[in-house]
Amino acid sequence: MRRSLGAGTIAYPTPVFIVGTYDARGMPNIMAAAWGGICCSRPPCIAVALRKATYTYGNIVARRAFTISIPDEGHVVEADYAGVVSGAKEDKFAAAGLTAVRSELVDAPYVGEFPLALECKLVQAIELGLHTQFVGEIIDVKADESMLNADGRPDVAKIRPFMFDPGTSAYYGISRLLGKAFAVGRKLVKNQGGS
Amino acid sequence: MRRSLGAGTIAYPTPVFIVGTYDARGMPNIMAAAWGGICCSRPPCIAVALRKATYTYGNIVARRAFTISIPDEGHVVEADYAGVVSGAKEDKFAAAGLTAVRSELVDAPYVGEFPLALECKLVQAIELGLHTQFVGEIIDVKADESMLNADGRPDVAKIRPFMFDPGTSAYYGISRLLGKAFAVGRKLVKNQGGS
Repeated sequence: MRRSLGAGTIAYPTPVFIVGTYDARGMPNIMAAAWGGICCSRPPCIAVALRKATYTYGNIVARRAFTISIPDEGHVVEADYAGVVSGAKEDKFAAAGLTAVRSELVDAPYVGEFPLALECKLVQAIELGLHTQFVGEIIDVKADESMLNADGRPDVAKIRPFMFDPGTSAYYGISRLLGKAFAVGRKLVKNQGGS
Repeated sequence: MRRSLGAGTIAYPTPVFIVGTYDARGMPNIMAAAWGGICCSRPPCIAVALRKATYTYGNIVARRAFTISIPDEGHVVEADYAGVVSGAKEDKFAAAGLTAVRSELVDAPYVGEFPLALECKLVQAIELGLHTQFVGEIIDVKADESMLNADGRPDVAKIRPFMFDPGTSAYYGISRLLGKAFAVGRKLVKNQGGS
């Protein structure tokens, strides 16, 4: 039996993107954002949607750059903290005991302790309502070497990312490999001869 | 030690959105998309980015509507299949043994067997490069009643959603609750008195 939950923002999984920016004084800041995702393969782009009221909003508009650091399970507390206080009030890097690493490619800092960081240049700001969606071109992805597999690709089992559940406002970990993409579903293809 | 992975589309988690549409003949179709996410709270909106070459692209442009069904772990094969064949060639609902449920709110079908479905009206189509990002206003979220907790909210442990890993093209499950959002990080707040 289907039940209507109304018009709301429920989807799974949603990410925990830690958005890194510099403010007008050059102070590094982070905030947590769950409204976002990859949005283009060529050029590689990622979107993150923020309310105008956030400190990060003004920083991105002014610097036209941001980073997305992906936190690991071991930093749930720090990631959540980044979403509960404004950078206008606290030095969040200092309070969370995190290191602001200056990107050499874009005018924004990323989190040194987190396994993965995307360095982005702002390409579009799209007004959608309460949120403005910032689309950033991914100039580079930086990974801690210990997070890579033998092929030099990021290894989920080492990165241990987690997701945000907007239904109950909670964080959940990532578990086991379920199957290879573009592979496990092929057995359902009717015309196995291809096109 | 940080290593550069180049300009690519790597982020965690990325979703497995099953996009439901009707084609010009009224045939229901699904495709899998990982480039997307919630993008606005008011009005509630979700974004999904598709290549123009996809069958779904034309369907969304023509019907100005789509659904996003969220698959569960038990339907990894069906979800993957939706991403490996074009709806121009196969009746994917039939081949995957899935039921196309006609939305009463938008001109698109959703997957009856999946735990959650978002019914969306197209509000923007944003050209980003290889991908076009479709922003849909979420008109309603439908959940199977068995997927709700005692408060009537979606329960991740029951839904069992999964994520796509763009680094190695694989699917991973969701594991345990790590903590409550806007809560576990509060202990790091310096000015506990608030603003």
